[in-house]
Amino acid sequence: VEGGAGRRFSVRRAVRWGDADPAGLIYGPRCFDYAVEAVEAFWEAVLGLGFLDLHRAHRMGAPWVHASCDYLRPLAPGDEVEVTLAVERLGASSITYRIEGAGPDGQAAFRVTLVSAMVDLDTGKPTPVPEAMRERVRPYLVGA
Amino acid sequence: VEGGAGRRFSVRRAVRWGDADPAGLIYGPRCFDYAVEAVEAFWEAVLGLGFLDLHRAHRMGAPWVHASCDYLRPLAPGDEVEVTLAVERLGASSITYRIEGAGPDGQAAFRVTLVSAMVDLDTGKPTPVPEAMRERVRPYLVGA
Amino acid sequence: VEGGAGRRFSVRRAVRWGDADPAGLIYGPRCFDYAVEAVEAFWEAVLGLGFLDLHRAHRMGAPWVHASCDYLRPLAPGDEVEVTLAVERLGASSITYRIEGAGPDGQAAFRVTLVSAMVDLDTGKPTPVPEAMRERVRPYLVGA
Amino acid sequence: VEGGAGRRFSVRRAVRWGDADPAGLIYGPRCFDYAVEAVEAFWEAVLGLGFLDLHRAHRMGAPWVHASCDYLRPLAPGDEVEVTLAVERLGASSITYRIEGAGPDGQAAFRVTLVSAMVDLDTGKPTPVPEAMRERVRPYLVGA
Repeated sequence: VEGGAGRRFSVRRAVRWGDADPAGLIYGPRCFDYAVEAVEAFWEAVLGLGFLDLHRAHRMGAPWVHASCDYLRPLAPGDEVEVTLAVERLGASSITYRIEGAGPDGQAAFRVTLVSAMVDLDTGKPTPVPEAMRERVRPYLVGA
Repeated sequence: VEGGAGRRFSVRRAVRWGDADPAGLIYGPRCFDYAVEAVEAFWEAVLGLGFLDLHRAHRMGAPWVHASCDYLRPLAPGDEVEVTLAVERLGASSITYRIEGAGPDGQAAFRVTLVSAMVDLDTGKPTPVPEAMRERVRPYLVGA
Repeated sequence: VEGGAGRRFSVRRAVRWGDADPAGLIYGPRCFDYAVEAVEAFWEAVLGLGFLDLHRAHRMGAPWVHASCDYLRPLAPGDEVEVTLAVERLGASSITYRIEGAGPDGQAAFRVTLVSAMVDLDTGKPTPVPEAMRERVRPYLVGA
Repeated sequence: VEGGAGRRFSVRRAVRWGDADPAGLIYGPRCFDYAVEAVEAFWEAVLGLGFLDLHRAHRMGAPWVHASCDYLRPLAPGDEVEVTLAVERLGASSITYRIEGAGPDGQAAFRVTLVSAMVDLDTGKPTPVPEAMRERVRPYLVGA
């Protein structure tokens, strides 16, 4: 586990009509979709590779081992959401992301934690997060 | 193109809360999910193989080349839907499915047409639907 | 039916990991999600109201009566898609959208047609597209 | 908080092609969809009302305030999953569900916790879980 510079990565998206349920608000599981999308965008922008590259070029996978969400404020279709990602923990072969979605008023609407394990696709076993990746992830670690 | 015995294959499922939008009714694109699920169940039950087997064991894929839906009656969360599949056309390297979803009143709520091409995953080119599969699909062809 | 200036409306989005299936390419029904999202963004940007406003402030709905898609080229996770919308037909109480998704190479990957009916939520019956909306939609009509 | 008889409620479903991602396994957020579907089926079967009835007839909502999932074993398209629900806690105005998804080998593949708050739709405030509902939920409380 390493301390970090506390950088943040963020993406914006709108809550879509199809993301909401008959209560007129975002359907709970969709917040996890938003969070995974943010991690995917983080990989592309910061690590310089997509999940598909990770699989095909590196023969590694990064399956989720844990996911949780606290729902703080409702979001409705049309709402712009700023989804902000930080890295809570960079373990030997795991990464813990802390993701917050803020609604149009700037207040946190949901807080997601996602933990992924790095896995060697050929052995099916955990494998260390490569140093080249660690270096790029480190600045996003929340401060100690 | 071959004539057929007009057999039908059907699956039942409920419209779920997360399948509906703030209008309180099924979100349109979900009908295509229901239709694809019916095709998948048809493959498993009638052809004896899943899409994953098709890819891995046969090195073939069956991508969609066309999809269309007529929305006839609304469906709401909790509604039981009977999704019934027939095969409209069995081409040399394509299959056209006709899928109908009937609501709790037994009336058609949506009618989907799906056309899939059989593709060789190694060449990326169309490939004939194997005779062993044709034989199993044939009884589901709508009568001439 | 009216002729039009042929304006286009477009939005960009990436194909996400969760939008793709084990074939490694976009799961067919997701193209309809992308198309509906484009219509929703068009309503907000061009008509100045969201689907929720239409329901709550205007007591009108715009359910889909028909949807179809031609799949032309595969799209993979990470691909940027430009989704472009034009209005093919502005009927008395219906709107027909023509939506094209172009992949990173600029080539059309899918072409969707969506037809929505304007419905009075209190009577459940078709109702004319209000003139104030027609005026804003007209410039997006494809040329005669 | 009340002790309980430890009854279980379960539903079966298959992992569908569209639920899996390019890794060939279930896309993480889908486990929450499966869990919410199980809660919805539990409401219909045990409480005798759907979420829509709760909203429309009772003017109450049951939004999620927390959701978490531990991913224990991968699931692939075609896998039959038995989703089993128990009630972990029946608070004054909240219900905590414990949901487990078991794969074809009978082993737990994921464990979800969902917490919902009972809300009065007219005031937007928490409201007690009605006694008639508590009575039906109680047998599903995990033993003290």
